[in-house]
Amino acid sequence: MVNRPMRLHLNENTAGCSPAVFDALTRLGRGDASIYPDYGAARRAAAASLGVSVDYVLLTNGLDEGILAVTGAAFRDRSGGVPEGLGVTPAFDMYETLVSALGGRMVTVPMGDGFAFPGAALRRAAGPATRIVFVTNPHNPSGVPAAADDLLALAQAVAPALLFVDEAYIDFGGDTIASERILASTPNLVAGRTFSKAYGLAGLRIGALIARPDTLEPMRRIVPPYSLNAWAAAALPAAVADVAYRDWYVAQAAESRTRLAAMCDRLGLESWPSRGNFVLVRVGDGARDVVAALAAHGIRVRDRSSETGCEGCIRITAGLVEDTDRVIPAFEEAVCAAR
Amino acid sequence: MVNRPMRLHLNENTAGCSPAVFDALTRLGRGDASIYPDYGAARRAAAASLGVSVDYVLLTNGLDEGILAVTGAAFRDRSGGVPEGLGVTPAFDMYETLVSALGGRMVTVPMGDGFAFPGAALRRAAGPATRIVFVTNPHNPSGVPAAADDLLALAQAVAPALLFVDEAYIDFGGDTIASERILASTPNLVAGRTFSKAYGLAGLRIGALIARPDTLEPMRRIVPPYSLNAWAAAALPAAVADVAYRDWYVAQAAESRTRLAAMCDRLGLESWPSRGNFVLVRVGDGARDVVAALAAHGIRVRDRSSETGCEGCIRITAGLVEDTDRVIPAFEEAVCAAR
Repeated sequence: MVNRPMRLHLNENTAGCSPAVFDALTRLGRGDASIYPDYGAARRAAAASLGVSVDYVLLTNGLDEGILAVTGAAFRDRSGGVPEGLGVTPAFDMYETLVSALGGRMVTVPMGDGFAFPGAALRRAAGPATRIVFVTNPHNPSGVPAAADDLLALAQAVAPALLFVDEAYIDFGGDTIASERILASTPNLVAGRTFSKAYGLAGLRIGALIARPDTLEPMRRIVPPYSLNAWAAAALPAAVADVAYRDWYVAQAAESRTRLAAMCDRLGLESWPSRGNFVLVRVGDGARDVVAALAAHGIRVRDRSSETGCEGCIRITAGLVEDTDRVIPAFEEAVCAAR
Repeated sequence: MVNRPMRLHLNENTAGCSPAVFDALTRLGRGDASIYPDYGAARRAAAASLGVSVDYVLLTNGLDEGILAVTGAAFRDRSGGVPEGLGVTPAFDMYETLVSALGGRMVTVPMGDGFAFPGAALRRAAGPATRIVFVTNPHNPSGVPAAADDLLALAQAVAPALLFVDEAYIDFGGDTIASERILASTPNLVAGRTFSKAYGLAGLRIGALIARPDTLEPMRRIVPPYSLNAWAAAALPAAVADVAYRDWYVAQAAESRTRLAAMCDRLGLESWPSRGNFVLVRVGDGARDVVAALAAHGIRVRDRSSETGCEGCIRITAGLVEDTDRVIPAFEEAVCAAR
């Protein structure tokens, strides 16, 4: 039934990058490989695309490097003892990995009912050792969005600790806080973006931190001066110029979410109203069997069933509709077999 | 006289990458841009090229990311107060930048006479707060090499602090300490390598840390799981397979060094016996004028004249012999005009 391996486990863009991006890459030559990259055009293109001034943007080698830089900057001053990062569970695992790798301690609170943003619980959990709070909006792995007002209230409550709002999936839905108007008046607020998802550039590694210039300054010192490679720097202006491609892909992901949600309804499986390019489905005790059965069909999905707050859950990337239409019957068959 | 801009200021490979590397890049497609890279082949190729086991190598997004990771790992435990990095002056500026960015304090000692490795001074300067010692071998910007035995003696003297030996230029000359035999018995020793220079991949950003697996482990946690981009990961196996290209370029750099040294002799200018792909020349008070005059000819060289230990000095990349033969008359003319 399925002819090629389907990667629905890492929330990648399942369509490949824009043809315009690929054209830009084919114009690079041997000389571009051997000299250090120039980022002028990439920086201007990113800032214009994000709707902020160039000095509000720090390009990073994927958003992972951005998380490293924001955490390193938050932990720079250790005069208060072991610094703490605060976040939610379940969450993207790089927050805890990097907090620990840099010598800090991670404190987490559970997401609210239905993966509601737990703003009050985060405020209560913040203490004198809290240096940074990590929030993903829309939430990963549920896709449930947080309200911008709730995020801004949290930023004010935890200041001067940083609030890092990871907007990795915001191109697919939800309200960004990464406007210059908001950021200018909120010096402890840092937004994270990636060009991996809607623009399909995960293989090229391009992310960005967005914040006030003075807030970004300690992060700029951590990110090496040559971070993105020359192929990434060439891809970015072409990617953000091809708005039609991005909009088409975002629409594909939205339609795929709708079809996956309808599948869950048919099967009587719990899922949540996702604004990301993925859907979390509670399969229950058979989750591992379903993941294995799909793998046998060449379909990779993400088993989150053993994580706190995700018991029995599988996350499925919502990408191209044609891929979704191939995964749905395989998923239905696997769920029925596991019952 | 000079027809195209000549970049002799960043110690880049002035020949471009190997054609075999470029061929490998042209085989990548749109789908490679949108999925997270796989590093299996790149890791195996790097380890084989470096002559160590795969688990002794950590690939990094340029060696700058390696310096960030080794410094972050060294500074992870702050129970002893503000951590110190120790190094020499003059040196590559990223050591001090990252020590400071991560909340540490940099301590430096001057290089010895004729840029001799100041092993005894480094040992004396190491104290209880020293967490990492940075040495570049061959030294940058002089190109003067250190003896492996002196480096190993320093490693033993400063343990358990890390000794980071930055071998960015070792492909051009000098003795590496990055052998599995040496590293296996020296748990606080970490070597850094780059594929930017001899292999001509500065634009692709590929470096490596080499150390015992247990020594590398805290650095692996800092480097994000997707660090090199897909184009870099594809380039690396092709680059290390083309040994003839590397050897040809190393020979070009060696001949260029010889010609630049002969020029210094003719002009009565002090220089030092470099093993890197660059030559440091003491021009004296006219250094800035010489740099400006060369720039007016489209030739960029590196003004180091205001740095402690480099007073009056200019660093010139030694790359393609044909480039060297074009820079020499322009340099001679500029020096004579500045006298």
